[in-house]
Amino acid sequence: MLDDTHDPARRSFVASANGHADFPIQNLPLGVFAPPGGARRAGVAIGDRILDLPAVAPLLGGGAAEAVAATRDCRLNGFFALGAAARQALRAELSALLAEDSPAAAELGPVLHRAADCTLHLPSRIGDYTDFYAGIQHATNVGALFRPDQPLMPNYKHVPIGYHGRASSIVPSGTALRRPNGQRKPAAEATPSFGPSRNLDFELELGIWIGPGNALGTPIPIAEAADHIAGYCLLNDWSARDIQGWEYQPLGPFLAKNFCSTISPWVITPEALAPFRVAQPARPEGDPRPMDYLWDDHDQAEGALALELEVWLTLPGEAPHRLSTSDARGLYWTPAQLVAHHACGGCNLQPGDLFGTGTISTEAGYGSLLEITAGGRKPVTLPSGATRRFLEDGDTITLRARAHRAGFATIGFGDCTGTILAAP
Amino acid sequence: MLDDTHDPARRSFVASANGHADFPIQNLPLGVFAPPGGARRAGVAIGDRILDLPAVAPLLGGGAAEAVAATRDCRLNGFFALGAAARQALRAELSALLAEDSPAAAELGPVLHRAADCTLHLPSRIGDYTDFYAGIQHATNVGALFRPDQPLMPNYKHVPIGYHGRASSIVPSGTALRRPNGQRKPAAEATPSFGPSRNLDFELELGIWIGPGNALGTPIPIAEAADHIAGYCLLNDWSARDIQGWEYQPLGPFLAKNFCSTISPWVITPEALAPFRVAQPARPEGDPRPMDYLWDDHDQAEGALALELEVWLTLPGEAPHRLSTSDARGLYWTPAQLVAHHACGGCNLQPGDLFGTGTISTEAGYGSLLEITAGGRKPVTLPSGATRRFLEDGDTITLRARAHRAGFATIGFGDCTGTILAAP
Repeated sequence: MLDDTHDPARRSFVASANGHADFPIQNLPLGVFAPPGGARRAGVAIGDRILDLPAVAPLLGGGAAEAVAATRDCRLNGFFALGAAARQALRAELSALLAEDSPAAAELGPVLHRAADCTLHLPSRIGDYTDFYAGIQHATNVGALFRPDQPLMPNYKHVPIGYHGRASSIVPSGTALRRPNGQRKPAAEATPSFGPSRNLDFELELGIWIGPGNALGTPIPIAEAADHIAGYCLLNDWSARDIQGWEYQPLGPFLAKNFCSTISPWVITPEALAPFRVAQPARPEGDPRPMDYLWDDHDQAEGALALELEVWLTLPGEAPHRLSTSDARGLYWTPAQLVAHHACGGCNLQPGDLFGTGTISTEAGYGSLLEITAGGRKPVTLPSGATRRFLEDGDTITLRARAHRAGFATIGFGDCTGTILAAP
Repeated sequence: MLDDTHDPARRSFVASANGHADFPIQNLPLGVFAPPGGARRAGVAIGDRILDLPAVAPLLGGGAAEAVAATRDCRLNGFFALGAAARQALRAELSALLAEDSPAAAELGPVLHRAADCTLHLPSRIGDYTDFYAGIQHATNVGALFRPDQPLMPNYKHVPIGYHGRASSIVPSGTALRRPNGQRKPAAEATPSFGPSRNLDFELELGIWIGPGNALGTPIPIAEAADHIAGYCLLNDWSARDIQGWEYQPLGPFLAKNFCSTISPWVITPEALAPFRVAQPARPEGDPRPMDYLWDDHDQAEGALALELEVWLTLPGEAPHRLSTSDARGLYWTPAQLVAHHACGGCNLQPGDLFGTGTISTEAGYGSLLEITAGGRKPVTLPSGATRRFLEDGDTITLRARAHRAGFATIGFGDCTGTILAAP
């Protein structure tokens, strides 16, 4: 799957792309944007620019042209539906078109917009959103707050635990969000009360975009599951811990999560991430082998992702502070296993659906304040001397992801950021 | 809100409508259908016929014409978004158009399709689907199977418990469904196994269609909540109890529910149901008063619905058997309370979203086999001598709802039916 689009020596005539921390020519992520005063359309991030995809369609052939034509409704659902072949054809042609020696360099200037001037939108109409719980360190840490002697439920190592989330309240990076009101009942109070959440938290997750999908009643075999992944993003699954603690039994989180979820708007393709696939980390001695419907040798050998993850907290008037680091290898299940599990009972996945992996923590770095502050009991102190149990109004959280590997260009996901506004 | 469209003496020139158990001229439910060989379009059920709405648009004025124009994408989302005024204008004009003395009777013949020849589709693109748990008798019965001494969780009488469900696998009545495969771990077995669900169940629910909705971050006050309900349907929330029992902790039901949910395709409007509104049943002594954001005097006085509900089970080759009866007064929260709660933290509801009320049981009749057979321990015996713990392949479940009140025409919802196919 590695080809000359991954060549670290390849440079772009877009000068800012060369050495860009997120979007060098080896990345080429897709999204939906609007230039200043213009309508929304599909685009590709390259350095600090966005290439207008419909505008370059006449320069593309075959599968690449078909891929761009599938975005004509200004969403990527139709493009996701085409699957790997069209996506790869588009990548190959875009890589040539944007290369240092591109014959089209001169004429592309007017359709390379300054990203800072553009508005980024959600890449697809998200039909359904599912959030998993595949970060085993996170599940262990959170479980230990409630059940110190048995942090993980008996099902955890057998079932990729997940639940349905709210699609309508998913917003692109940069959208401010309101602190939710809701019912809370601290242990010290006899009766619940209604008001602004006092324990507002972030969750560091990867998002997975669904490609072709399956018909209702027809499972996706694990060996084919990776073919149904169109790309990846960052996902901040904002969580109101006090609302969650009171409402979640017996049917799971609801209003504690559905007030807003923020994603990074660029779709990082499986092709861009190909150099950064790694073996699924070996299960600890004594853990059960995944069941057959979740087991594929190829997926075990290279179905996981090596991605360095970061969480930055910015208080009003202060410099950004790196609050935590983590790694996508903290996931107990591969993305393909999540797809195969979701469809094993016949549930139909559709192009443009979104999965969240669940919060990703490692032993060294935690993906939520719930873990960092031990449920709010141990506030974190920032360089300014300010402390935080949970997030306060005006705070900004930014998630980042980068993939490094010797012999390859580093690529990143772009920011996933959101600032808390006061409750209405 | 009662007007001459509710007059029980009003008759239609469509002879089958007069005395029709579901669709007399006092009902006029809306849906999306395709006549034989034709494309899908909006329609109105009248007796055993369906009136083609776009075809009669030229006969309509003002708000009614606007309502039909909003269905031009062959979905009712845009119509739901218009809210009550357009819906009421359409109802008034359709009631006159279909009345016995209608001057248009002769010319409407060609656009009144035989319902039996048509295909019914989902009425809207369902952006998000939420399932509540508002049937208190059901929650008590199910809770007692697991916690005999404390059937209801401490939050139940304070929080309208709900969770997000899967929108993509909602199908219209008449669609057969496949028994799902999944992970099950009966208490008697040491390890889980993968295979067809052995404990497949139905759930008798009402569905609630969302109308205009709210912007992200802006709650819906309880006094306005009813204005955001566009109509009602029946909902069978098929459930695989063995999969559910193993997977649901700690994040709630997932694959146990998302393989299929069946709805009745006709949208029964708030106007059609106006004669059947009743006071919310008084809470038992000692129950907490609903919090202010859920309390509205008018909603308490007439926000509940009096609907007789039935579940019919048909075994292959046998006559239909009425398995159970129930009543919508078994809901602990009004539909308006469910809307206000869902939006209280700022979650945005959108036109065409669907809520399920949760399974509706009464002391006299249960809305699931889980309750009827006490978790499968007490099989039910049918008139043929056949027994059922849970559903078997080939079984058909049909849900029905009827509204009766002295001095008014009885109306019904139409069937919500599905037949179980073998697992793949």
